[in-house]
Amino acid sequence: MDDPAATAHPPNPACVVNCAVYAKDGTRRNITLDAISEVLAHDDGSFVWIGLYEPDDTILEKLQEEFGLHDLAIEDAHTAHQRPKVEAYGNSLFLVASTAQVVEQKIAYGETHVFLGPRYLVTVRHGASLSYAPARARVEREPDMLALGPSYGLYAVLDAIVDDYLPIVAEFKATLLALEKDIIGESFERAIVTRLYDLKRELTYMRVNVAPMQDVLSQLVRSSSPLVPEEVRLYLRDVLDHSVRVNETVDVLRDMLGTALSVNQALVTQAQGEVVKKLAGWAALLAAPTLITSWYGMNFVHMPELHGRYSYVVLIGAVAAVVGLLYAYLKKVRWL
Amino acid sequence: MDDPAATAHPPNPACVVNCAVYAKDGTRRNITLDAISEVLAHDDGSFVWIGLYEPDDTILEKLQEEFGLHDLAIEDAHTAHQRPKVEAYGNSLFLVASTAQVVEQKIAYGETHVFLGPRYLVTVRHGASLSYAPARARVEREPDMLALGPSYGLYAVLDAIVDDYLPIVAEFKATLLALEKDIIGESFERAIVTRLYDLKRELTYMRVNVAPMQDVLSQLVRSSSPLVPEEVRLYLRDVLDHSVRVNETVDVLRDMLGTALSVNQALVTQAQGEVVKKLAGWAALLAAPTLITSWYGMNFVHMPELHGRYSYVVLIGAVAAVVGLLYAYLKKVRWL
Amino acid sequence: MDDPAATAHPPNPACVVNCAVYAKDGTRRNITLDAISEVLAHDDGSFVWIGLYEPDDTILEKLQEEFGLHDLAIEDAHTAHQRPKVEAYGNSLFLVASTAQVVEQKIAYGETHVFLGPRYLVTVRHGASLSYAPARARVEREPDMLALGPSYGLYAVLDAIVDDYLPIVAEFKATLLALEKDIIGESFERAIVTRLYDLKRELTYMRVNVAPMQDVLSQLVRSSSPLVPEEVRLYLRDVLDHSVRVNETVDVLRDMLGTALSVNQALVTQAQGEVVKKLAGWAALLAAPTLITSWYGMNFVHMPELHGRYSYVVLIGAVAAVVGLLYAYLKKVRWL
Amino acid sequence: MDDPAATAHPPNPACVVNCAVYAKDGTRRNITLDAISEVLAHDDGSFVWIGLYEPDDTILEKLQEEFGLHDLAIEDAHTAHQRPKVEAYGNSLFLVASTAQVVEQKIAYGETHVFLGPRYLVTVRHGASLSYAPARARVEREPDMLALGPSYGLYAVLDAIVDDYLPIVAEFKATLLALEKDIIGESFERAIVTRLYDLKRELTYMRVNVAPMQDVLSQLVRSSSPLVPEEVRLYLRDVLDHSVRVNETVDVLRDMLGTALSVNQALVTQAQGEVVKKLAGWAALLAAPTLITSWYGMNFVHMPELHGRYSYVVLIGAVAAVVGLLYAYLKKVRWL
Amino acid sequence: MDDPAATAHPPNPACVVNCAVYAKDGTRRNITLDAISEVLAHDDGSFVWIGLYEPDDTILEKLQEEFGLHDLAIEDAHTAHQRPKVEAYGNSLFLVASTAQVVEQKIAYGETHVFLGPRYLVTVRHGASLSYAPARARVEREPDMLALGPSYGLYAVLDAIVDDYLPIVAEFKATLLALEKDIIGESFERAIVTRLYDLKRELTYMRVNVAPMQDVLSQLVRSSSPLVPEEVRLYLRDVLDHSVRVNETVDVLRDMLGTALSVNQALVTQAQGEVVKKLAGWAALLAAPTLITSWYGMNFVHMPELHGRYSYVVLIGAVAAVVGLLYAYLKKVRWL
Repeated sequence: MDDPAATAHPPNPACVVNCAVYAKDGTRRNITLDAISEVLAHDDGSFVWIGLYEPDDTILEKLQEEFGLHDLAIEDAHTAHQRPKVEAYGNSLFLVASTAQVVEQKIAYGETHVFLGPRYLVTVRHGASLSYAPARARVEREPDMLALGPSYGLYAVLDAIVDDYLPIVAEFKATLLALEKDIIGESFERAIVTRLYDLKRELTYMRVNVAPMQDVLSQLVRSSSPLVPEEVRLYLRDVLDHSVRVNETVDVLRDMLGTALSVNQALVTQAQGEVVKKLAGWAALLAAPTLITSWYGMNFVHMPELHGRYSYVVLIGAVAAVVGLLYAYLKKVRWL
Repeated sequence: MDDPAATAHPPNPACVVNCAVYAKDGTRRNITLDAISEVLAHDDGSFVWIGLYEPDDTILEKLQEEFGLHDLAIEDAHTAHQRPKVEAYGNSLFLVASTAQVVEQKIAYGETHVFLGPRYLVTVRHGASLSYAPARARVEREPDMLALGPSYGLYAVLDAIVDDYLPIVAEFKATLLALEKDIIGESFERAIVTRLYDLKRELTYMRVNVAPMQDVLSQLVRSSSPLVPEEVRLYLRDVLDHSVRVNETVDVLRDMLGTALSVNQALVTQAQGEVVKKLAGWAALLAAPTLITSWYGMNFVHMPELHGRYSYVVLIGAVAAVVGLLYAYLKKVRWL
Repeated sequence: MDDPAATAHPPNPACVVNCAVYAKDGTRRNITLDAISEVLAHDDGSFVWIGLYEPDDTILEKLQEEFGLHDLAIEDAHTAHQRPKVEAYGNSLFLVASTAQVVEQKIAYGETHVFLGPRYLVTVRHGASLSYAPARARVEREPDMLALGPSYGLYAVLDAIVDDYLPIVAEFKATLLALEKDIIGESFERAIVTRLYDLKRELTYMRVNVAPMQDVLSQLVRSSSPLVPEEVRLYLRDVLDHSVRVNETVDVLRDMLGTALSVNQALVTQAQGEVVKKLAGWAALLAAPTLITSWYGMNFVHMPELHGRYSYVVLIGAVAAVVGLLYAYLKKVRWL
Repeated sequence: MDDPAATAHPPNPACVVNCAVYAKDGTRRNITLDAISEVLAHDDGSFVWIGLYEPDDTILEKLQEEFGLHDLAIEDAHTAHQRPKVEAYGNSLFLVASTAQVVEQKIAYGETHVFLGPRYLVTVRHGASLSYAPARARVEREPDMLALGPSYGLYAVLDAIVDDYLPIVAEFKATLLALEKDIIGESFERAIVTRLYDLKRELTYMRVNVAPMQDVLSQLVRSSSPLVPEEVRLYLRDVLDHSVRVNETVDVLRDMLGTALSVNQALVTQAQGEVVKKLAGWAALLAAPTLITSWYGMNFVHMPELHGRYSYVVLIGAVAAVVGLLYAYLKKVRWL
Repeated sequence: MDDPAATAHPPNPACVVNCAVYAKDGTRRNITLDAISEVLAHDDGSFVWIGLYEPDDTILEKLQEEFGLHDLAIEDAHTAHQRPKVEAYGNSLFLVASTAQVVEQKIAYGETHVFLGPRYLVTVRHGASLSYAPARARVEREPDMLALGPSYGLYAVLDAIVDDYLPIVAEFKATLLALEKDIIGESFERAIVTRLYDLKRELTYMRVNVAPMQDVLSQLVRSSSPLVPEEVRLYLRDVLDHSVRVNETVDVLRDMLGTALSVNQALVTQAQGEVVKKLAGWAALLAAPTLITSWYGMNFVHMPELHGRYSYVVLIGAVAAVVGLLYAYLKKVRWL
């Protein structure tokens, strides 16, 4: 392992973000891909942790050969269109996790594929996802935990993935809160409804991505695979708990969103009723003087009122009185 | 245990609400945190019960050391953003319970974290929750039950937590009842709909908090942990039952609320239909005389009616008759 | 057992509806509460059946002492706010059943608590419920079944409780049927909607009460308790079946009710559409002659039509023709 | 068994549709009820198959005695108000199946009760159901299957019952299809909504009847009762599959029906919007000339326009132009 | 097996798309149906793969005889109206899969029935489905996998079937996206609602077909049948995953569709409210001058305004001012 020739290997290609071997005491040593076989040759309790970002086929083929990965898992890792799942292939695990990240004010989803074996951990990131460098750094500060094997690295990665959902869910909450205020406010703009719809879509896609993550974590926690020691399972249980919380919040938001749509509809209907009432009220208010003026527009020869000296003044008073009383009445019954 | 030096320890900090040791016969003796190790040194059937309120890190670290608590549980106890859960760490249990309290006419939720070991019970309150002093006092009046160990104290705390939900649920019931009356009543104010929405939100948050409490209690009742003796489980079953009842009531209220929203919408629509009908009725009532007066406003030279001596009087009678008959008819068909 | 002193005991208080001992051959003998201990002293295959109605504390305490009932069960039996459940305490069962009765045209719910032991059956009625005297009488006519022990008495009581639900459910069905007719009928009164809401509430409360009854019965049927012999379980299975049927009917009614509300809303909307159409139709019918009369009300000096000898007659004909044709057209396109 | 006295028994009453013994080789021989005990006396692999239609009590009591049927099963068979279920009584099965038949263009439901024992099969039809004669005839053409015992007869009966649902479900499908066409078509008659409601009710009752049939069949297929040999279970699995298909179709129809109701509501709302738009359009079209004519009906002394020689002709042209332009505009923006 | 007489058999009928024997080394040899018995006579690790398209009865009978297929399975294979299922008959499996294909811009569903035995694989296509020739060709390029037996062929067929769903689901997604744009756009045509309904129907039928496919695949993956070796199960797990993904997408689309319908309804209601508001606004704008002109149409003898030299000019100015101010006001409060 301390072979000086290790540094003689060609440097790792760009898609290899990280490639290191962790000794039994938790210390780290960077190696090249070609040095892996030498490391694996001696079972001294160390393990290899490789981080890839959208690797090309040759890298994956190389790793398949080194670690004896299954054809199907490698095929899945090539094409990033899997739903979160965990699958056992002999004494190794293949895991697909869904990642989320806000890119240019939009939520972009990615996938991380993980190969976990007794002496290796390979993470393959596809599409939108934050780097796992902080997770790795955090883990390296706990060498006694790293001594538990590669599954503790898996925990760190999954913990980072689920934690990345939290700010997005918080953003959803804030969006709904703002929408609720707009709904209850006076203006009923079309935009409120379309924003509700957009939020619903976002939440639905979120749910499709996070809900199976919960299954994956639950399977890991309950699995009896020797790859994941009891102590690490306690940590994974914690991640499972966070994912349950994320799911719960998404479900609550979806539920409230449906009610918000109904409430908006109810308030719009009510506001329209007010419009119709006002329309009716003003029509009534104008109909009365119109009938009166129309009445005295008749051309009967014998209409004594028309000839009175003060008829017109009386009429003005009468119309004013009728309109005034009607206005007061309509105000009282709240039709104006 | 009767070490006179016990009183020599520094006094407990303010966040330690209570710290006592309960002897096998149920008698209580207050101690300082520093005296705990002395108590635990002799396994004489006694146990320590500590009540904390939003403790600082040093206290938690001290307790972790004294009782050998797990890192993850302590980490959870620091940050109060857990959902209700019960988790086994070796031969101890870590439990998160959701508490609710009405603070300034609003429902505030808090968390209580409990560490239960063979010889200790630690409760850590965060945020809104009533004191557990009454629960503790009640338990101290039953020394034979306390002799069952710290789990009976756990029962008392959980019982108090679930009982604190009851007045809130009763308040929800009263709110819905009041809303129902308003819905069926005559006025259709916007406020009804927004109050329905507020209640829906309150119920949804309540459900998110109480539903997992039911799971927690159910797990405790069905668990085979030696920490919770058979006899105490009968008592926990009772608390479980209360939590089921709370959940059931919340679900019923949510269900009725949805229907209430539909019914309100239906009644508003119907009321608007009445408005339109009335609008149409009055329009018809006024259209008839308007047409007549407009008719006799025509300027044809040869309109014999205009010249008759009693034409105008006849017209007045005719208009009165038309309006009267139309009014009667519209009243009959309920358009007025 | 045939102790002549038995009659020397003080008479039973009023809340003790019934207190009898059933011998192995099914024959019955009334006893006082104080005679119970004598009966239990000899295990001759007989059992005691006590029926209480809202007993005071002293009676319950006495029974607790006689039969060795658990504190928690006695506490539950005091306060009648339990949901249906069945709980094992050592070799006895405590059971809470929900009862329903129509009191003054309203459905009132009550509770019956049952203590079942190897040699005793205690039923405690709270609130609205019919007497179990008929059930007891029926059972007494089947001495060979009574020989199976107190659980057959339990069957008789549960059978009576579930059967009491049937007329209420039938009433619900009739109410929905009447509402359906009103919905499809012509009048759209507010009362229909509020009656739908009332029915929904009744059904919801019914469901909260009956659904857990099904669980209770199901647990009894599947339990392996020696208190309920195989043969009696066949009878309880029959009661379970009835409770399933009640639940099913309630669910169907709730489902249909939701649809009825939607249908009512749809028909009201449609009827309003008809009103608006009629309103528009009549407005159009009147607008035409109004425009014509307004036209000839103009004061142009040179309007040749105004001066013709038969102008007015022609106008009358023209207006009649326009209105007639318009009326025919509007009738044809169903706007009138 | 070949006892010549067999024919000496009194003839079977009318409610006994069929009573025959099937020998081990599948051959059939009609017998009277009184001859049953003779047949059962020799266990030669034969079995008795009795078909009853709404039998009176004496017949059922006779059969109970002959086959040793359980009291509860007989009680159920008397009163035809059971939900589909299968119950084991010792080494016999009691089964309730729900039957459906179109009677006078309405769906009528009935019940068939089946007693299955090692050497007998009794079917009791209540209410609407088609005769099982065809099923029996079909079975008799397969003597090698009949040799499997009475359970193959049970299969034939259940197969017939489930197949009788198929034309009804097909009819439901056709009804929904017709309704869909009407909904999308132009007319929005009240009848569409009420027919949707009727279909919903029919489907709901259908579901209540067929869904537990699926459970019954599933229990039979998965049961380990020696009464139903492995080979017959393959056939029952086929019937189960048909019942699943019926249930699935009913669920799909219910789902589509709900959407159809929403869509109808949406289209009605939209059509009403069109009516309102047209109403507004025509009102606008008429308001313009009315304002103009009203204008020139004013009695100002100095209105130069009134005195012009060609004023009236110009006015006619102006009104025509205004109306024409307005009409073109309103057509363009689709308000007419 | 290398019998030269094999070629002497009559050629296969048209409904036999393919009939070949695969040797243990994966090499293929076409044979006629009549040669099957010769092949099966020697158990040399080879298996027969037959592809049929809507075969007539004689072919199925022949295969039943050759492979000893069960009557019920053959009966199912005749009539293509089965739901997806997998059934074990002795040491063989019978499987029904649902296939989908776009035919003339409509989705047509078909069925594929599969008989899987230790040494044979028979696929029977009914109705719409793409040929399995590509699947077969792909498999033949992997002779080491074919050596696993006929179940690998089954995998290839099921993989092809599920993959054929993907473009249809993608099309659904595109349709919903287009509808969403139309809904949010300005025009509210009836066609949008009917297209939503059509999509809902398509999705519902899709779901009925694909959901049980998932069960079928899940049963295969979890089954312990020796017909499907462990290695092949890994491949079937991959197909299962694809089917889960298809189902999930269909469910998401159905969910969004429901919301889209609500949103469309909300936007239509809102747009109608705008129409009513505009109607009311224009009515108010015209009512004012109409009242004024009607006023000065009155025939009072003493109306000083009528006689003023500039009265008419003033009136014109007044009307213009009123209309202008009203217009400005109505614009401001957004009623115009």
